Amino acid sequence: MRIAIIGVGLIGGSIGLALKQQNADLRVIGIPRREETVKEAIAGGAIDCGTTDPKKGVADADIVFICTPINLIIPILKEIAPALKKGAIATDVGSSKYEIVSQADKIMPKGTYFVGGHPMAGKEKVKLKEAEATLFNQKLWILAPTSKTSKKALEKISDIVTRLHSNTVIMDPKLHDLAVAGISHMPLAVAAALVDVVAASEAGKEEMQKCAASGFRDTTRIASGDPILGVDMFTTNKKAVLAMISAFKKSLSKLERLIKEGDAEKIEKELERVKNFRNSIL
Amino acid sequence: MRIAIIGVGLIGGSIGLALKQQNADLRVIGIPRREETVKEAIAGGAIDCGTTDPKKGVADADIVFICTPINLIIPILKEIAPALKKGAIATDVGSSKYEIVSQADKIMPKGTYFVGGHPMAGKEKVKLKEAEATLFNQKLWILAPTSKTSKKALEKISDIVTRLHSNTVIMDPKLHDLAVAGISHMPLAVAAALVDVVAASEAGKEEMQKCAASGFRDTTRIASGDPILGVDMFTTNKKAVLAMISAFKKSLSKLERLIKEGDAEKIEKELERVKNFRNSIL
Repeated sequence: MRIAIIGVGLIGGSIGLALKQQNADLRVIGIPRREETVKEAIAGGAIDCGTTDPKKGVADADIVFICTPINLIIPILKEIAPALKKGAIATDVGSSKYEIVSQADKIMPKGTYFVGGHPMAGKEKVKLKEAEATLFNQKLWILAPTSKTSKKALEKISDIVTRLHSNTVIMDPKLHDLAVAGISHMPLAVAAALVDVVAASEAGKEEMQKCAASGFRDTTRIASGDPILGVDMFTTNKKAVLAMISAFKKSLSKLERLIKEGDAEKIEKELERVKNFRNSIL
Repeated sequence: MRIAIIGVGLIGGSIGLALKQQNADLRVIGIPRREETVKEAIAGGAIDCGTTDPKKGVADADIVFICTPINLIIPILKEIAPALKKGAIATDVGSSKYEIVSQADKIMPKGTYFVGGHPMAGKEKVKLKEAEATLFNQKLWILAPTSKTSKKALEKISDIVTRLHSNTVIMDPKLHDLAVAGISHMPLAVAAALVDVVAASEAGKEEMQKCAASGFRDTTRIASGDPILGVDMFTTNKKAVLAMISAFKKSLSKLERLIKEGDAEKIEKELERVKNFRNSIL
């Protein structure tokens, strides 16, 4: 089997490393933007060979992983689509799915297939040198089929993902987008706003900086991630993110009202309920 | 020197353990609510002797640590004030300060002193068996003097706090309350609201629970703390907490506007700014 990986950074590189560790009859073709990355990825054992020409790179591939920044996924798919061989399956790793799978359904030539994917694994830094064969171990890898997605193609991608030691989860693309907006994208906006409160405060700013300890560190950790990933989340999953920000504001206002009323019993009940729910899902 | 500790749980017990490790000429008197806790604390090495009668317990004390739940601090201070010996200094460990120090200034009999304190250390569980001599190591211990606070008393408490391996910070009580509201109390409300979004969602609830990973875990960790501590924060520091919730909403709305506009460049700039600020203070 020949597998092409377009975009050889943290995710693409880690997929290559993990596949090559299988020692199976896989041949991995890397397709980065820069020639030097081809050399670096071969030297690091992430790919067997490579090219910077996507069309050339995917020509013989059975499976193509598109691991570029999310806003390039559809343009790249459009570029490679005519070059795919019959039966080839393309998949992606973008963190929002509805737009991508809807467009992909229109782009794929007859006899080729697309399966939308989203590995829930990452690091704050996204370069190839951060890649690890174990990046996906025990992590979720969501596959988001549409009504048009081939069942066989879905199974094949699910097989590969399992080989990467990920746990496959099948999810409706729209519900996926809502879910990641709720537990990942919107929380990033919230964490960024928490940091901004300190940055923007007039009274007590110095004192806040002195007092900021482990609680504040954890609550805002995701605000120190790569801003580009944040931009991707907020622009490609805009609708769901805005819906979740609205939902969050409602939840906060509910608690704010209880605090205003100063009803200790009600506040305790609410915090107890939230604590129990959190403990039940994590 | 004789030190009385009223309330022998996580904080009071840890103060006792840390003081007794000094092997200095300190005698530690424990004043818990229940007789069994006296025995438990002696057996655990947190106190030398104890009583459940606060007035009796503080009679010979040079320094009194009030480590009860925050809403009991002022009632306890009123109770023990007439029993304090001349020159005695009382201090507390409550997480908000302005109300406490203002009232304490009125309560203290002539020739006795009060210094408001707030050790920024804790655990999710607050019982005596969680106490550790090292709980305060390298943690901040804020002292919040008023214009009426004796400089000598402040120095003495600062000395003791240093012996507990804490880093003393002197802070205006009002600015203290604003600061902890900004980096601790309001973030708890935010973390609770983030959990509530998932609990309250109609579409995608199951998917959110499946997707919740390390980012969500960290961002909401403080929502699994003791609800009673949350009630204390929200009721005793109400004004500052509400002010900080308002400030937070403004910060979030700013980012929400950028997301609505969909201006990738502006979003990136904002996330970059927030990331840099966070990294500069943590």
